[in-house]
Amino acid sequence: MRAPTDLPAITADILALVRVRAPRVHCITNAVAQNFSANMLLALGAVPSMTIALDEVADFVKRADALLVNLGTLDPERRAALEEAVTAADARVPEPVPWVLDPVLVDRSPPRAAFAQALVERRPRALRLNAAEFLALAGQMPTVAALASYAAAQKSVIGLTGDRDVVADGERTVVIRNGDPLMAKVTAMGCAASAVVAACHAVEPDAWVAAAAGLLLIGIAGEVAAEQARGPGSFAVAVLDALHGLDAGTIAQRARIER
Amino acid sequence: MRAPTDLPAITADILALVRVRAPRVHCITNAVAQNFSANMLLALGAVPSMTIALDEVADFVKRADALLVNLGTLDPERRAALEEAVTAADARVPEPVPWVLDPVLVDRSPPRAAFAQALVERRPRALRLNAAEFLALAGQMPTVAALASYAAAQKSVIGLTGDRDVVADGERTVVIRNGDPLMAKVTAMGCAASAVVAACHAVEPDAWVAAAAGLLLIGIAGEVAAEQARGPGSFAVAVLDALHGLDAGTIAQRARIER
Amino acid sequence: MRAPTDLPAITADILALVRVRAPRVHCITNAVAQNFSANMLLALGAVPSMTIALDEVADFVKRADALLVNLGTLDPERRAALEEAVTAADARVPEPVPWVLDPVLVDRSPPRAAFAQALVERRPRALRLNAAEFLALAGQMPTVAALASYAAAQKSVIGLTGDRDVVADGERTVVIRNGDPLMAKVTAMGCAASAVVAACHAVEPDAWVAAAAGLLLIGIAGEVAAEQARGPGSFAVAVLDALHGLDAGTIAQRARIER
Repeated sequence: MRAPTDLPAITADILALVRVRAPRVHCITNAVAQNFSANMLLALGAVPSMTIALDEVADFVKRADALLVNLGTLDPERRAALEEAVTAADARVPEPVPWVLDPVLVDRSPPRAAFAQALVERRPRALRLNAAEFLALAGQMPTVAALASYAAAQKSVIGLTGDRDVVADGERTVVIRNGDPLMAKVTAMGCAASAVVAACHAVEPDAWVAAAAGLLLIGIAGEVAAEQARGPGSFAVAVLDALHGLDAGTIAQRARIER
Repeated sequence: MRAPTDLPAITADILALVRVRAPRVHCITNAVAQNFSANMLLALGAVPSMTIALDEVADFVKRADALLVNLGTLDPERRAALEEAVTAADARVPEPVPWVLDPVLVDRSPPRAAFAQALVERRPRALRLNAAEFLALAGQMPTVAALASYAAAQKSVIGLTGDRDVVADGERTVVIRNGDPLMAKVTAMGCAASAVVAACHAVEPDAWVAAAAGLLLIGIAGEVAAEQARGPGSFAVAVLDALHGLDAGTIAQRARIER
Repeated sequence: MRAPTDLPAITADILALVRVRAPRVHCITNAVAQNFSANMLLALGAVPSMTIALDEVADFVKRADALLVNLGTLDPERRAALEEAVTAADARVPEPVPWVLDPVLVDRSPPRAAFAQALVERRPRALRLNAAEFLALAGQMPTVAALASYAAAQKSVIGLTGDRDVVADGERTVVIRNGDPLMAKVTAMGCAASAVVAACHAVEPDAWVAAAAGLLLIGIAGEVAAEQARGPGSFAVAVLDALHGLDAGTIAQRARIER
C-alpha cells in the first residue's frame, strides 16, 4: 500500500503508462459531456468510446480497459445501457473491467438519487462527486471523516472535488489543493475529470492511488491552463493542451498535497 | 414600463443580478447545442441543467429559475420531455417558471412547424427565432410591424435575430445593431443566445426587457470576440471569454440601439 | 474523368463552389461528433442539419444537397433514422441525394459490422474509414490494391484516412500525404472529415474527385492548424479557423499528392 507522499512521482508513472498503453476507456456519459470527455481522454493518451446502444455496449465494455458510468442526462436508454455496461464489466474474465461512478446532480431529483444508490451498492472502484452530490448520496456533510467512513462502509474509493479535492478509501486520505476556480465555469469539467480517473484505473490496480492520480493530473492541468486563459472559453481549450503537455517535472513542482 | 433608451444600463443591472444570484436555467435543447449552451450560461454566471429524462424533468424544472425549450433535434423523447417541462413550469407555485421558446428550423419540416405552433399557443414568455423561422411560424415576412402584431396577437415577446435583432411585445419595439457575421458561422450560436435570454428572464420580470437584454449581451460579446478571432473556431471560444468578462462600461459604450 | 494531377486546382474550385452555393448537408451522426461536424461544415461554407427524429428526417434529407451517415453511437433510434434517411436520399427526384458512409468503430462490435455491411450494399457515393474499420468491413489489410478492388466490387469510392490518405474508385487511386498527427488526438476529427467529404459531393458529381477533394481540404487545414497549436485543444479550434481561411494558393502550395 503506497503513501500520499509518493503521489506526484506515482502520478507521473501512471501518466507515462497511459501514454504507452493507450488504454480503451468506455464512457456511458451524458450528452453534454461526451465530446469534452473524449477529448480529455485523447489529450491524456487514452482511447475513448461512447456508444450506449444496448446490443453493442457489452461488446465495447468487454474490449475496454476501464469503464466510466456518469448519470448526467439519465434518459431510459442510457439507464439500461449503463446497467448492461456494469454487468459486462463485472463479468469480464479473467479480470473484471474497473469502473468509476460519477453520480452527477443526484441532489436534484429523487429517482436519480435512488438509481445512484443502487449503483453504489454494486461497488464501483471509485466515485467522483462534489459536495452537494455527496450530501444527497450519503446523507451527511462531506467532512474528511465522513468521506473516510462512507468509503469504508461502501468499499469504494471516494474522490470529492471542489475548492480542494479529497480522496479516501477508509484507510488512506489525501487532500489535493490544485485546480483553479475557472474549472467551475466549464460544463462537464467534473465529468471529464471522472473520465481521467477511469483511465488511471485502467493502468493502476490500487484504486485509491488511481483516483488520487487522476484528480491530481486534472488539477495541475487546470492550473497550467488558467495561466494562459482569458476566460472560460480559452480555459477549456488550454486544459486539453496542458494535459497533453504535462510532464513529471511539472507534476512534482506543482502538486500541493496534504495528508 | 421601461423604455429602450435605458436598455444598456438595465442590461448591465441584469448581468450583475445573474452573476449574484446564479439562477438555474433548465434547457431542453438539441444535442448539437447542449455543450455550447451550457458553457454560455456558465460564462454568463448562470447554472445550467440539461436532462430530458421523463421521470425527472419536472423535478429539475420545479427547482429552476427559468426554462429554455429548443426544438433543434426533435426526437420523440425530447418532445415528450419538453411538454412535461412546460407543464411543470406553468404549474409551479407560487410563481410559474418563465420559459423561452426557440423554434429551430421550423421552416424545414411540417410536423416540426405544427408542434412549434402548439407550443406558441401555450404562451412562452419569449420566442427567439430567425427570419426563416418567423416566416414559417407566422406566415409573413419579419417586418418590424409584422413582429409587433404577431407579438401582440400571441401575447409573447418576439426576439428576432439576424443582421439586426428586433425585440417586440406589441407595444414596445427595439432594434439592436450589435453582433458580427462570424456568429452565423458557429453552430448553436442562436440556441445559446436563447439560453442567455432565458437566464435574463430568471432575474427580470419584464419579458420585453429580459429578451432585449439577453440579445444585447450576446451581440456585444460577439463584437468583442470578433476583434480577437482568427476564424469561427477561435471566435466561438472568444465569445465565452467575452461574455464572462463583460462589464457595464463596455455595454454602455458598444450598445447600438434604435427605437 | 479527371486525373489526380489536377486535384489541387479542382479542390480549390470545389471549395469556391461550396462557399457560393452553401449546400445543405444533413448529418445522421453520433452525439460525440455532432457539434464539431456542424462547425466544420459551417467553417467550410456549407449549412448543416442534424435531426434524427423519424417523422422529419425524410423531410430534411429531401431538402438537402448531401447526406452523411455515421455509425458512431448506434442507438436504435439513430439506426431507424439513418435507414429512413438513406431511403429518402435514394428516392429523391429528379436527382438522388448523394450520401457518404462513415462506418465508425465497426471493428468493435459484430452487430455494428453487420449493420454497416448492409449499408455498403446500398451503395453510398463514398465510404470514409480508417485501417481497422476497413479490415473489419472488407476482411483484408488496407493495401492500395485491396482498396481499389474493394471499391470496384462495391461500386463505391473508398476514402481511407491515416498517416496517409488513399482514395480509390477501382480505376483511379490517389495518395494524399497531408495532415498532422494531432488529428488523431481530437475526437470526431474523422467524422468531421466525412462531413466535409459529403459537402464536396453536394457540388461535385464525380464521386472520386469529391472524396479526394474533401480529404485534401481537411489534411491541409490540419497542417495549417498544427503550426499554430499548443496541443490538441487549440489544434481543434485552429482547424476550424484554417478551413474557413483556406484559399487556392495555400492548397496549391501545400498539397502532397502521389499517384
